[in-house]
Amino acid sequence: MSTTAIERGFVSLVGAGPGDVDLLTRRAVKRLAEADLVLYDALVDPEALALAPGAQRVFVGKRAGRPAVRQEFINWLMVRAARRGRKVVRLKGGDPFVFGRGGEEALALAAAGIQFEVVPGVSSAIAAGALAGIPVTHRGMSTGFVVVSGHAEEAYKRILESVAPQSATIVVLMGLGRMDRIARLLIERGWNALTPAAVVFGASTASSIVWTVTLRELERGIELPDGGQPGTVIVGEVVKLRTALVAETVEAAAVAEG
Amino acid sequence: MSTTAIERGFVSLVGAGPGDVDLLTRRAVKRLAEADLVLYDALVDPEALALAPGAQRVFVGKRAGRPAVRQEFINWLMVRAARRGRKVVRLKGGDPFVFGRGGEEALALAAAGIQFEVVPGVSSAIAAGALAGIPVTHRGMSTGFVVVSGHAEEAYKRILESVAPQSATIVVLMGLGRMDRIARLLIERGWNALTPAAVVFGASTASSIVWTVTLRELERGIELPDGGQPGTVIVGEVVKLRTALVAETVEAAAVAEG
Repeated sequence: MSTTAIERGFVSLVGAGPGDVDLLTRRAVKRLAEADLVLYDALVDPEALALAPGAQRVFVGKRAGRPAVRQEFINWLMVRAARRGRKVVRLKGGDPFVFGRGGEEALALAAAGIQFEVVPGVSSAIAAGALAGIPVTHRGMSTGFVVVSGHAEEAYKRILESVAPQSATIVVLMGLGRMDRIARLLIERGWNALTPAAVVFGASTASSIVWTVTLRELERGIELPDGGQPGTVIVGEVVKLRTALVAETVEAAAVAEG
Repeated sequence: MSTTAIERGFVSLVGAGPGDVDLLTRRAVKRLAEADLVLYDALVDPEALALAPGAQRVFVGKRAGRPAVRQEFINWLMVRAARRGRKVVRLKGGDPFVFGRGGEEALALAAAGIQFEVVPGVSSAIAAGALAGIPVTHRGMSTGFVVVSGHAEEAYKRILESVAPQSATIVVLMGLGRMDRIARLLIERGWNALTPAAVVFGASTASSIVWTVTLRELERGIELPDGGQPGTVIVGEVVKLRTALVAETVEAAAVAEG
């Protein structure tokens, strides 16, 4: 730790992919191996942290029942460490620029004059389906897809109300708690209530669960598994391909509440 | 090569990411290292093939001026090799299930009773922007994104005509040749003609080029660089973030034709 060397710190905003450490990119692995400090989210596999044995590892994600670390504090940690010449990895679930506030972190680094890069990751928006045997696009069935965050109505309403029924695959991230309302919105907009949908929990991990239901069943409400695992919902005809593409039996477990 | 052992062939449909070999996943690297046969597309970095030194490598992509290898023939090659007990990697640019006909290949393998897996990759739909300093989502600016293929009108028309103007980031893959028509469609639908757009060629490679323009400029036509590189077009306010996120000067090179 020479204090005379002109060491410049550096921040990598790294996507950790959908969960399984094998879905990290080569670049992500390299950055972790060289890191002095890793700031990681709740969605990150502990095995990924083991790839950064020389780094200080700080959890900055949300955990049930505890207040979240403020974004400003995360930004401050990154800037301070980089100014001290440290190599920082900001490790985020999925891709850093898909609902990950990666853009905000990048802006904070740019404003502070910190050198940084973005290392894209495999996004659950695409991979949650793929790993469950559901392609987001498929010739003759879906020529496009729409990805929204379901965490609040204003985040998805204008998009989902407008997109022509059955015209695209819909992927909802972080929307498990609002899927009844989202399904109702789609049905009221003209989507076929029997459109198949899949709810994927823990994509790419050993504890992955996939439910295949219909929009109507989603509207009536599904019982969520314990543990508050993040879930991805895929709506569209492509969900039907899962039967042909996955050998295991599919457990459909929609529970009518209404 | 024991003929008595009950060797079962296996096919991995692997996403190679947007170009740079460092954006392959760990699993992709493992599959390549163990492969007996690699069937690869035009979008795949030659360096990725070097990760499969023990494999027979067969180009099955489209190349300008030559007829494309028929999908049925690719399927047949995979099935035949797997039946002979070989480990096959079907290496596709980006993610196998984003406009990559990966679903069709998976169905062909399932129908033939061949064991297979999907290894998701980093999709250019998200990474082309990210590597150019453009997040597809950004709080207060874009709460969702729409990904379409621009190769034919029927592939994007219903989706892009319906989605509410300025409500989401639009990503068009394989649509360089039709961007004038796509931009016109959006403007006629009510999108602000001054909405910023970025055209990204060769995302993640050393020869990457990024143009930032407006919808109006796209509509008037842009001069494409030689070589027929695949390009990704991103439309939406998020394109403005590039200026803050990228240090280098941006060359705007829209050429009015009309």
